Amino acid sequence: MSQPPERYFEDYVPGAVFTSRAVAVSEAEIIDFARRYDPQAMHTDPKAARSGRFGGLIASGWHTAALMMRLFTTNFLSPASSVASPGIDELRWLQPVRPGDVLRLRVTVIEARRSRSRPGEGIVRSLIEVLNQDDTVVMSLKPVSLIACRPTPPDSA
Amino acid sequence: MSQPPERYFEDYVPGAVFTSRAVAVSEAEIIDFARRYDPQAMHTDPKAARSGRFGGLIASGWHTAALMMRLFTTNFLSPASSVASPGIDELRWLQPVRPGDVLRLRVTVIEARRSRSRPGEGIVRSLIEVLNQDDTVVMSLKPVSLIACRPTPPDSA
Repeated sequence: MSQPPERYFEDYVPGAVFTSRAVAVSEAEIIDFARRYDPQAMHTDPKAARSGRFGGLIASGWHTAALMMRLFTTNFLSPASSVASPGIDELRWLQPVRPGDVLRLRVTVIEARRSRSRPGEGIVRSLIEVLNQDDTVVMSLKPVSLIACRPTPPDSA
Repeated sequence: MSQPPERYFEDYVPGAVFTSRAVAVSEAEIIDFARRYDPQAMHTDPKAARSGRFGGLIASGWHTAALMMRLFTTNFLSPASSVASPGIDELRWLQPVRPGDVLRLRVTVIEARRSRSRPGEGIVRSLIEVLNQDDTVVMSLKPVSLIACRPTPPDSA
């Protein structure tokens, strides 16, 4: 896994757009994730899934969310400054994710403001869009991220 | 895994409360999930996590979400009627989930209405609360679920 860039609160400016590298989704991983966490036939049984609503196996929406988080953690957040997330709004599964799909993120910063209760931190709201190899948005969500501010050099303290 | 109950749209009545069985969360599973999907030290490195914000290793919020989905799929949804979900609103991570915690769900039906575009289906909005062994709500969310209506017996068709 590549080293994420070092970023701080000051680097997340409203309107800024970040894109991620891509990740491929295999049938084996779709089935493995779903057997553990979302054991429904549309996610675990290729044969049954063929005669179902989606005409074939699709990834659990929570699997897509987990893959999104891997890309978000390693391409948008930074170990130096990522503190926590209080939550997510408007998570939408817009299109099915199928075996062989290749997913990547487009993240747009919506709002960035300093925390009143924690002076060394800021609150970043963003829109994450998960796109597949056809540039179709398959999932979107609006997370809130708590991000540490850039440390003040000792000289200027 | 126990067989989920057979339920249809008609069984999800606003105000109804469903509770799930419990699932324990191990340190090994927290680390394994996070290495795959959320590789941040607070989720993957017990030693580094001890000196961090949460004073110890905590589960990725997406791991808690995945465990929630396992309980939701097997205790609230039914293979006979679960169609899909278009999304989630107001996902909140309220308290950390730590190794050894035991989680269960309390699901309250908020709204249930027949679909206009698909006559054999209904739309169920619910509030899911994930509780730990101390009855603390660690996570909450409001999913929308598409649920098939009970089939009409041929005689009355």
